[in-house]
Amino acid sequence: MCELLAMSANVPTDICFSFSGLMQRGGNTGPHRDGWGVTFYEGKGCRSFKDPMPSAQSPIAELVTKYPMKSEAVVCHIRQANSGAVNLENTHPFIRQMWGRNWTYAHNGQLKDFTTELPIQFHLPIGTTDSEHAFCWILDQLHITFGAKQPDYKTLFSFIANLASQIDTLGVANIIITDGEYLFAYCSNNLHWLTRRAPFGQASLIDAEVAVDFKKETTANDVVSVIATQPLTDDETWHKMSAGQWQLFCLGELVDGALIAGKLTANK
Amino acid sequence: MCELLAMSANVPTDICFSFSGLMQRGGNTGPHRDGWGVTFYEGKGCRSFKDPMPSAQSPIAELVTKYPMKSEAVVCHIRQANSGAVNLENTHPFIRQMWGRNWTYAHNGQLKDFTTELPIQFHLPIGTTDSEHAFCWILDQLHITFGAKQPDYKTLFSFIANLASQIDTLGVANIIITDGEYLFAYCSNNLHWLTRRAPFGQASLIDAEVAVDFKKETTANDVVSVIATQPLTDDETWHKMSAGQWQLFCLGELVDGALIAGKLTANK
Repeated sequence: MCELLAMSANVPTDICFSFSGLMQRGGNTGPHRDGWGVTFYEGKGCRSFKDPMPSAQSPIAELVTKYPMKSEAVVCHIRQANSGAVNLENTHPFIRQMWGRNWTYAHNGQLKDFTTELPIQFHLPIGTTDSEHAFCWILDQLHITFGAKQPDYKTLFSFIANLASQIDTLGVANIIITDGEYLFAYCSNNLHWLTRRAPFGQASLIDAEVAVDFKKETTANDVVSVIATQPLTDDETWHKMSAGQWQLFCLGELVDGALIAGKLTANK
Repeated sequence: MCELLAMSANVPTDICFSFSGLMQRGGNTGPHRDGWGVTFYEGKGCRSFKDPMPSAQSPIAELVTKYPMKSEAVVCHIRQANSGAVNLENTHPFIRQMWGRNWTYAHNGQLKDFTTELPIQFHLPIGTTDSEHAFCWILDQLHITFGAKQPDYKTLFSFIANLASQIDTLGVANIIITDGEYLFAYCSNNLHWLTRRAPFGQASLIDAEVAVDFKKETTANDVVSVIATQPLTDDETWHKMSAGQWQLFCLGELVDGALIAGKLTANK
């Protein structure tokens, strides 16, 4: 299995604190030694850092931990390989373009029979993971259903939620997907989130001797949501998502919480 | 204008030496202050490092200079913006997927009337540069002409050369494009290349007080070609490409030099 970490914020925010906790799980406090990657959005542009090396020993991870890249949306992944060899083409997150946006995808879990159950016509995978295959299948389904024009966000993410629940029937599929503006999280069996806003307090990492006082790092209007496989701090309240539940975030906030985020019938 | 640097090699080779020379031109020995990027291939996988900051002052560029990432194909670009704002989405190289491969594109030059002369249906640009638009147009033309199946490399790169010469009629278009296996270079007005092989000698950078003795860094079978806007060393013989000329490299070698690489009629 792997671990996921994502962030949605209303102002460009660095993720150094959470990232430094997660990276310890890549070969140090956790067993996820088979590579890691992170994608930072700045507007519609994004940049990724990836390494098939364990994150706890990666000079690139060290740079990302220390160099505060400010972003409104971030997706991180540390890998414990179960489908596909340990190499760069199988390292998450996966990024592809659709409708003039960069789409980023990361997956924690394992899928059976994905090559037959999720047939692909247009968006051919580069590597051999179940994860990239499922992402390509999602893009194919979006292309087939909506063509060249992106639908409104409610239609789009309800549709993606339906696709995620179909993928989830093949095994375990905790999924993060974002276009840099909206950030979608689907829980198969293991996903937590919290939103930080004023009044800000202190937080302490579980995986490293690091604490931060967000009061010193933020303004009163900042809103930042963090989504992670397992809580990263031991002195904040994390919401545990339930099987089949999905949430949509935009600019740090849950989107239309009562209206469109909710529970799908888990077809498991 | 911008500067390009690319490498094709028959063994995974680091580009630290050439890269450290090029990075000096990004705000130090050259005026290309509007960002930089580099893509390294490892097999079919690739990773990019990008920064809208000047390369001579970028902590990420410093990491890439010092951390020897070994690769068979590399594309670098430093930018002096003339089309599109200075931001991440306008920073080269551009990467998109087709036929189960990562395709990387970088451009030095400037195009007029590209939105009308290079109409796009499928591969929509994310940023606002002439360069990304032309890349999307190339992918559209490949998709329209060859569909879901990649043609043989001779057909493919002859076709791409024809597209490059059409782009070149709109202004200046020195182009590098690669799928990590083949590396294609089109010269509009400014592109040089050399191939390093045994017996290896010493080389000295023009832009920094750095010399390297390749005998100590290589084996007798290594073959490495480097393509650059301007020669990076002052004690090696660089081949200057002529207007409308293109070259294809694979595993460090010129491909079928006499057979398919050659001069197109420049429609300028």
